[in-house]
Amino acid sequence: MDKDLIRENERVDDLQNGYYVIQDPQKFCFGMDAVLLSGFARVKKGERVLDMCTGTGIIPVLLCAKTPGERFVGMEIQQECAEMAGRSVRLNHLQERVQIIQGDIREAAQLFGAASFHVVTCNPPYMIGQHGLQNPDMPKAIARHEILCTLEDVVSQAARVLTDNGRFYMVHRPFRLAEIMNVLIRYRLEPKRMQLVHPYIDREPNMVLIEARKGGNSRIQVEKPLIVYERPGVYTQEIYDIYGMEGV
Amino acid sequence: MDKDLIRENERVDDLQNGYYVIQDPQKFCFGMDAVLLSGFARVKKGERVLDMCTGTGIIPVLLCAKTPGERFVGMEIQQECAEMAGRSVRLNHLQERVQIIQGDIREAAQLFGAASFHVVTCNPPYMIGQHGLQNPDMPKAIARHEILCTLEDVVSQAARVLTDNGRFYMVHRPFRLAEIMNVLIRYRLEPKRMQLVHPYIDREPNMVLIEARKGGNSRIQVEKPLIVYERPGVYTQEIYDIYGMEGV
Repeated sequence: MDKDLIRENERVDDLQNGYYVIQDPQKFCFGMDAVLLSGFARVKKGERVLDMCTGTGIIPVLLCAKTPGERFVGMEIQQECAEMAGRSVRLNHLQERVQIIQGDIREAAQLFGAASFHVVTCNPPYMIGQHGLQNPDMPKAIARHEILCTLEDVVSQAARVLTDNGRFYMVHRPFRLAEIMNVLIRYRLEPKRMQLVHPYIDREPNMVLIEARKGGNSRIQVEKPLIVYERPGVYTQEIYDIYGMEGV
Repeated sequence: MDKDLIRENERVDDLQNGYYVIQDPQKFCFGMDAVLLSGFARVKKGERVLDMCTGTGIIPVLLCAKTPGERFVGMEIQQECAEMAGRSVRLNHLQERVQIIQGDIREAAQLFGAASFHVVTCNPPYMIGQHGLQNPDMPKAIARHEILCTLEDVVSQAARVLTDNGRFYMVHRPFRLAEIMNVLIRYRLEPKRMQLVHPYIDREPNMVLIEARKGGNSRIQVEKPLIVYERPGVYTQEIYDIYGMEGV
């Protein structure tokens, strides 16, 4: 591993599959949501993939490792974060297939052109507006709150850059599910598959994974729930499988 | 029990709570979906409730038994079924609080007037159109397929007969979830609560329970999954509780 690519404030996370991602614990980290989205998304041979709001670049790195997709572009608006994600790509020698671009996803269609990707993935900011924020300029606030992009920005741009029948994959919070369905349908990204993620079997879900298809017909497959913990501190076998780790 | 109210082709089901419902096994039966919807719906003291597509009348009878609602109207388009449901009301001596009306729910707003109910419930036909039907005139086909009323008919009429902030409760199939959310929002019945029903913990859901609120804000609570079977032939405690039966 090329240690020159890592700054003093940063740490390197081993993805357990031969790949590594640089994180900055004070500013830019990935969560389980990004990993679960990578497990939920399907990318076929030769496909081009855009990951919006890519953050650390975790999603393109994981998808590049797991799928036969041809090319992965990660788009991140925060300069410092995009630069760090670019170093993760170099750390893994993935420059041939993964590219990180600093830019505003609201300009994605203008930048890449219509129908330029077969798949779009996104782990967007979950919280509406700047409600309750102390400092809306903080990197973590931008990643978590809809300060620089809204759900509608993500969906409208995804609809434009996707090919016909192209697939959109998103992870979000269940409390926005009705709004998500509504916005997707408004932009003709038809919801086709959904999985709720529950911390425990007897708890409310705290994440939802969604697949939509551009121009699809109206029929959604709701999958069995994805349960995270078997008991406190012990993941379910499914989670170990998604992480590519051996269970207990 | 007044046996004169029961015809030769019919049977009486004991609801385990002191109430009974007449069914005709060849034509008009209720399923677990109607019972689960009655468990999911909330009716407060003094409220007026309309049950659309009432069938055997199971939902108004159960809600009358379990809730302090003031008045329950069940609307059923099939004359023979409405007549049978009316006899179930008399069998239980509920004529003071429950009324069965034979009529087309597409005329509900015209018949009852705008803002005439606090709560609307519905266990509508699930299947789209007449796809695959041998005989679209059969009573069971009308109850199961959107022959005489569609999802949009149900939602548009519910939106009109509900008071401001009135609640709409529906049970449906998960494969139509995205369409359901979309139609509800289009008629300003904002989805507020949802529960998926799974036959077993590790299986896909086969029912979805939804609460929407007229003029509500955009935020939905997704509840923990409702699991039907502990193991083959044995219900979970939650199901026994909803049925008002003792578990094993």
